[in-house]
Amino acid sequence: MTVSRAALVDLLGALAYGELSAFDRLAEDARTAPTLASRAALAKMAGAEIGHFRLLEEYLTGEGVPVEQAMAPFVKALDGYHASTAPHDWLEALVKVYLGDGLAVDFYRAVAGFLPEPSGSLVRQVLADTGHSAFAEREVAAAIAENRQVRDRLALWGRRLLADAITQAQYVVAEREDLAELFVSGFGDLSGIAVLFKQLQKQHSRRMSALGLA
Amino acid sequence: MTVSRAALVDLLGALAYGELSAFDRLAEDARTAPTLASRAALAKMAGAEIGHFRLLEEYLTGEGVPVEQAMAPFVKALDGYHASTAPHDWLEALVKVYLGDGLAVDFYRAVAGFLPEPSGSLVRQVLADTGHSAFAEREVAAAIAENRQVRDRLALWGRRLLADAITQAQYVVAEREDLAELFVSGFGDLSGIAVLFKQLQKQHSRRMSALGLA
Repeated sequence: MTVSRAALVDLLGALAYGELSAFDRLAEDARTAPTLASRAALAKMAGAEIGHFRLLEEYLTGEGVPVEQAMAPFVKALDGYHASTAPHDWLEALVKVYLGDGLAVDFYRAVAGFLPEPSGSLVRQVLADTGHSAFAEREVAAAIAENRQVRDRLALWGRRLLADAITQAQYVVAEREDLAELFVSGFGDLSGIAVLFKQLQKQHSRRMSALGLA
Repeated sequence: MTVSRAALVDLLGALAYGELSAFDRLAEDARTAPTLASRAALAKMAGAEIGHFRLLEEYLTGEGVPVEQAMAPFVKALDGYHASTAPHDWLEALVKVYLGDGLAVDFYRAVAGFLPEPSGSLVRQVLADTGHSAFAEREVAAAIAENRQVRDRLALWGRRLLADAITQAQYVVAEREDLAELFVSGFGDLSGIAVLFKQLQKQHSRRMSALGLA
């Protein structure tokens, strides 16, 4: 399928702002880390997000588009998501990192499947795990093993994250025509998008289980 | 000269915590950046600090010392410096990044001169400019060109940073015997250290001039 230049720039711009926001959030979470070791671990993950950001910036610059220009249309929705899901403590922060990034990775990986090269490979490279997963699983498992109340609270939190992410994603698609068109033709039709959403929900549930929050 | 293992671990631990703190501070400053482009610029600098942190962590791990253990003795002094010099706005933040990093680089470069290999090269590699300098010079120059009051305020701020950095450095040396011994034998004697301090002050003044704050 053909992908319009405008849609591709939108997609990479949204991804770039996602990385910059993830950096921001991880850097902030690092400050609430309970130990110097976990603070360093989160700082390193934030650094890895910036490595990914640089790849996208480089590609967009090569296409003659300043990264800040490509990101601008997505600032509001992503900031809205992060503001509405600001974690109250270290564990909520970790659960958010784990589930939120998982969701983003699933989504972009599905999209990468119908992107032309080299942008398909670029997106897959940007999605490489920055070490969140193993770290979050370990920390959350240790915390909920001792406390059922904490587990219940985090389980609610995890479900809310999915709902808020979907809400903001819908705002974005409603405002960006080229992007909406890309998704509709990429996933076949509107029912293809419905199938994708079902898959995303299923993988979200799988990750909730991996954290012990099912 | 021989450098004791304890002194070397201290030195690299202090440097590692310096990088982690610099990351933290740059990430926080990024949030107050006036544009998306300057926010991305600061985030990339923060990412580069983490790249340097990783080098130190790798080396210390190879020596059998967890990086958090090596950093621990220096948390209080560096946090104290950052708390006493918390910038009130974006320009103070930039001036602090520029002058503070310049000071640290001058100091560690002098120390690297008497370190055995491979730690001397490691320190020099960690000191590589992460792009702060050109960025800060440009932004500060633009701001003070239009406003003499801002210039005077930032000039005072720059002088205070030097005083606070020296105060905290003295606390550290007073508490870490191995490190104090390393400096004394490395710089010849106590008068060698006095010479170093004069040099640091001179280079600080030179950087103040480069910012237009002399």
